[in-house]
Formats: sequence, structure tokens, C-alpha cells
Amino acid sequence: MEQPFRFELEHVDRKTGARLGKLYTPHGVIQTPIYMPVGTQATVKAMLPRDLADIRAQIILSNTYHLYLRPGSKLVKEAGGLHSFMQWNRPILTDSGGFQVFSLAKINDIREDGVLFRSHIDGSKHLFTPESVMEIEQDLGADIAMCFDECAPASADHAYATKAMNRTHRWAERCQKAHTRPDQALFGIVQGCVYPDLRIESAKTLASMDFIGYGIGGLSVGEPKPVMYEMLETIMPYMPENKPRYLMGVGSPDCLLEGVLRGVDMFDCVLQTRAARNGLALTRHGRLMLRNKTFERDFSPIEAECDCYTCRHFTRAYIRHLIKADEILSAQLISIHNLRFSLKLMEDVRAAIAEDRYAEFAAELLERKLF
Amino acid sequence: MEQPFRFELEHVDRKTGARLGKLYTPHGVIQTPIYMPVGTQATVKAMLPRDLADIRAQIILSNTYHLYLRPGSKLVKEAGGLHSFMQWNRPILTDSGGFQVFSLAKINDIREDGVLFRSHIDGSKHLFTPESVMEIEQDLGADIAMCFDECAPASADHAYATKAMNRTHRWAERCQKAHTRPDQALFGIVQGCVYPDLRIESAKTLASMDFIGYGIGGLSVGEPKPVMYEMLETIMPYMPENKPRYLMGVGSPDCLLEGVLRGVDMFDCVLQTRAARNGLALTRHGRLMLRNKTFERDFSPIEAECDCYTCRHFTRAYIRHLIKADEILSAQLISIHNLRFSLKLMEDVRAAIAEDRYAEFAAELLERKLF
Repeated sequence: MEQPFRFELEHVDRKTGARLGKLYTPHGVIQTPIYMPVGTQATVKAMLPRDLADIRAQIILSNTYHLYLRPGSKLVKEAGGLHSFMQWNRPILTDSGGFQVFSLAKINDIREDGVLFRSHIDGSKHLFTPESVMEIEQDLGADIAMCFDECAPASADHAYATKAMNRTHRWAERCQKAHTRPDQALFGIVQGCVYPDLRIESAKTLASMDFIGYGIGGLSVGEPKPVMYEMLETIMPYMPENKPRYLMGVGSPDCLLEGVLRGVDMFDCVLQTRAARNGLALTRHGRLMLRNKTFERDFSPIEAECDCYTCRHFTRAYIRHLIKADEILSAQLISIHNLRFSLKLMEDVRAAIAEDRYAEFAAELLERKLF
Repeated sequence: MEQPFRFELEHVDRKTGARLGKLYTPHGVIQTPIYMPVGTQATVKAMLPRDLADIRAQIILSNTYHLYLRPGSKLVKEAGGLHSFMQWNRPILTDSGGFQVFSLAKINDIREDGVLFRSHIDGSKHLFTPESVMEIEQDLGADIAMCFDECAPASADHAYATKAMNRTHRWAERCQKAHTRPDQALFGIVQGCVYPDLRIESAKTLASMDFIGYGIGGLSVGEPKPVMYEMLETIMPYMPENKPRYLMGVGSPDCLLEGVLRGVDMFDCVLQTRAARNGLALTRHGRLMLRNKTFERDFSPIEAECDCYTCRHFTRAYIRHLIKADEILSAQLISIHNLRFSLKLMEDVRAAIAEDRYAEFAAELLERKLF
């Protein structure tokens, strides 16, 4: 069987670290840098899969922790895997549940073999080990699976961060051993909190393990954004150049631009759809809180330049009405726009890199300080 | 200007009163009998307009009472009318608010000139008169507007029902005088509660006023279904044959079949979308409460014979998962199905009438007692 995964680094922007690439997967080619819409529970909230295809989503993310608890990964496997279950036939990435176990569940014990936790849904007890998570992710059958890692809090001191990082490395080895699906790529995850020495050590250690791609975890968990950017700059010299780099859980417009600037290829973030359900629209002219009275008689689209279904058809006044009237359609229409906004931003990012004008492109947008 | 409205009675089923017709409107031709999805607040809940077009909805209904209160009919007028505001370019019908005033609002006073009521949203005071409602409906600009009527409760005695009916007739005259838009058809509404003599008198009186079409109001408001069917049979000999007949607020599958049998041409009902939001799917094999455990590993579609997007792609197990996980997508997917189910039922109804086999068609479905 031919190796179904290949990352082609097509071009690096002349003045920045921004990279243009192609990641080949069994369900199609992903053009990077890319923003991945998040489908936590096997659905990108309020989006039909055909709506996702319509806005040209290339790959979506789903959550191992959530799907393991509900409906259960064996059920998804019986359904023919996640692609079939949720009817998304383009690439999917599943995270490892590491982040959710440490942020949503009640942790009972972190041990060498794994993590004992209680479900946030019903309080039931569960054990995640590298081996059990690999089984779950292989049952889900995404194109890309993430290693099970320990995501230490932003407040962790150097000693604890070291301990968590080393455990993450040992777990990464166990994940590699337990992972057998040839049609699924396994990515390692760089940890190390906000400590440059640990981040470098983690990047080097993971690089030596020759994963198909690399997640950068444990960032955007409470530390200031400049610290996150510093960590990215710190590790990049130690990240393999010919492998995709995925900054996990990060994807606000400014972070997308800043991340790409520093050589990140993949992003995911729930901001786009969560904001949509709260009536907040993203535009290149600033955020719009569409519930506000100021939009009551505003018969222009959310963003005149946007090519999405929402902007081609509906006015801010109509969407404001839907929000005020508590109509589900408001979440649908703003989700379509916010996701398309982010995907289009990355399309423009890719075009700018290809033409070696990414520095100017990013600087112009970031100067507006609108995100 | 050519008369933009025309009803062509194409065929009457040989053995029943079922009628096949075409109603021409400025936004297109409606093939009758038809079920109209309800877009109370200028949105058919959880449905993008393109989803509605996809399931071949011909005409939708929206609510004068709701839109008058929020966002306001003048705002909708400024937006270019309801078609433009909600981006639905096929026919729309607006009810008169009569039913909502009497069912949702707190009535302060019913007078000869109109109804004083308090908004169910903020308690503010308002007066609906035949003239003000005509202004509102003309501002909304639907293809079909309904007269403002008094919808007496099912429990009304003969004396009160007579009083309300006579007032409804006087209001109908005032509506006719106040209504001036040539591109909007005005329908009268037959009232008379559950009293055959009143229903006949109302049908005759309205018929003499030569409306473009007729609503049959005040049914399915608490009386047993056989009583509703009896009322339909009672009035039909007095309803103009060459005018469309619209049974207001009625549209469960059995009522659709029974109504058509008695000569009804148009129906609307919120059951389809409300049930969808509660996880209930309609099928010709019975109702499915998709939340139930029995569907946990049911990898078949809601209805194998259905041609809707939901049934062509998703399993009961997936939709059950969405319901259990409180995902908006469950409302979207089941709404698509339940609406398509009802529209397809009416397509089959029309085909059966055309071939003079409606009696057998309806009997076979009704015998299953599944709805």
C-alpha cells in the first residue's frame, strides 16, 4: 500500500516563516495554512455538511473525549467510522481527548499508565491511557489522530511542567506502538507550558520520533498572547521543516495571522461557531455584535466583500431580528459567515505567501487591531 | 394590469371531494392541494431558504401578529417586504393575526372597531382593527393576506359564536374596503365555531363577498377531529367551487388527508417543525421518537423511501446522538425530513386525485392509524 500521507512544503514566504503546503490524506488534499472548523460532537454546530462543503471547508476536527463518552467510539465504528457517521467525506482530525480530560472532566488521578477521570455528563468513571485512546481514535477512523498527552495548566511551575512533559513523551512512544492503522496519520504533541527550555526539549524529542505531523499543545490556555507567540518562535527552529505543524485550539483571526507568520500550518478553534451562537460576527472591519440596536435598520450584509450564502442574501437587520426573536436560523447564518470568513482569510493568506507578500498582508490586517 | 391571481380547478376526484388545482400568484404558481410550512417570525424554524427550496416548498406562511410586534411591519416594508427580508422568492401567505391575538396575547377588550391587546413579548398595549391589520399585511407584502377575524374559542356558546361571526363578517367588509394592493390577494375567513347553522351562514355570507380565496378558521382549536370534519362537510356545498379553500392551522398527516377528502386545497401547521425540535419524526410507517434507546444503533434512515437530504445521508443512530447531545443539527435534519414528508405526501395526494384514486390512497394511509 502506498503511503497515504505526504506533506509537500511548496513555498516559504521570503520575509517571514509563513509556509505554503499540501497535506495528502486518504480523504483528500489539504492546502495549508488551514483553519479547521470544530465539530466537537460529530457535528460542526448548526452546519449541515453540505453547508460546510459550500464554504469550502477542507478538513474538520472532532473530539475524542466527547465521542468516546457519547455516543461511544464503538458505536461510531459500527456506523462505519466518523466520516460515514456524520457524513463528511473530506478529511477529519480527532484530538486525543487530552485537553478535554484536563479542562472538562473531573480528574481523579494522573498516573503513569493514564488518567482516571469522571465524565462531565454523568459523573461515570473512566481511564484514558495512551493505548485506550489509540483504540478509540482508530475506531473513530479520522484521517489524522493526535497522541494522548498531558495538558498541564498555564499556571504549572517548571517542576510540574517538566514532569507533565516527560510523561507526555513517554505516552507519545506508547501511542506510536499502539497505533496501527495505516490509513490514519498519528501526530505527536509538543508540550512544555511557557518554559522555553522545556518547549525546545519537547520539540527535539518529538522530532526524533518521526511523527507524520506535530501538534503544538498547551498554548492559549490562559497565558498572554505574546507569550504564546514567543513559544512558537522558540520551538520553530527545532520542528521538522517537512512536517505539518498544528497549533491546537487556536484560531481567532489575529492568532491565525500571527501563527502563520511563525510557521504554523494548521489551526482549529471553536470561537467562530460559538461567537455565531452569541450573535457575534467576524469581519475584516471589526466584530459586529448583531444584537445591538444599531443594526435594527441596517439593510447591508454582514460583510459586503464576503462570498458566503449569508452575505449574498441576508441583511444585518434580518439577522438581528432572528437573534432578538431567538430563532435558530441566526446561529445557522452567522456560523456560515464566521466559518467562511476564517476559511477565506486562510485562502488569502495562502495567496499572499505564494506571492511573497505575507508580511505586508498580515501587518495590514493586524494593524487594524479589529479582532 | 393583468389580474395576477387566478385559481384553476383542474380536476375533482370522481369518488370524493378532493380537488386538484393551480393558484397563480405574483411569485409563482401553487399546485393544490398544498401544505404550507410555517415561518412564524419570518423564518421557517431551523431551515435556510435554500433548504426549503430543496424540499420543494411552494408557499410558506408567516404571522402578521408576530411580525407586527417584532421586528415591526414598517421595518419589513423598508427592507422591501417579507420576500426580500427573509429571502424567500416564492409565494408567501400572511395570516391576519386574529388567531394569535386570541391565543397568545392578553386581550383587554374586543370592540366593534377592533381588539385591544397586550403583547406577549413585553406587555405593551396595541389595537388591531381591520384597517390597521390591512395596512400591516400590505406592508409585509405577502402574495396572500387574510382578513382580520375574531377567532372565538371552541367552548363558545351559540349566542357568542353568532356575535363573533357577525363581527367577523363586518370586519371582512372593512378589510375589503381597506385593502388596495393589486399584487396581493385577500382571503375571507369562514367562522361559526362548531355550529352548523352558523358555519353555513358564514360560508354563504363570505361567498357573496367574492373574495379571491377563503380561509376556514376557528377549527382544530380544541374540538374533536370528527367535529372538524363534520364542519368541513357542512360548509363545502356553500363554498364557491372556483376559489381556493384554506383550512387554517391544520396539517397533521391525518388531517391533511381528511381535509383533502372534503375539498380543502390549502393547509398550514407548525406540527412538522415543532415535532422536529422535539426529536419526533413523521413517517408513513408511524411516528418515531428518535430520542428513544431503540434507535441507538439503528443505522437506517428515518424513512428509507424518503428523498430528502436527511434520509439520503443520515442514520437514525446519528440523529439520536445529536438529540442526546443537544445539538442544533438534530432540529435542522428532522425539520428537513418532516417538512419534506408533508410536501411529498401532498405530491402523492395530487397524483392520486389526478388519477381518480384518491379515495383508495387516503383510505389506505388512514387505516394505518399511524399519525
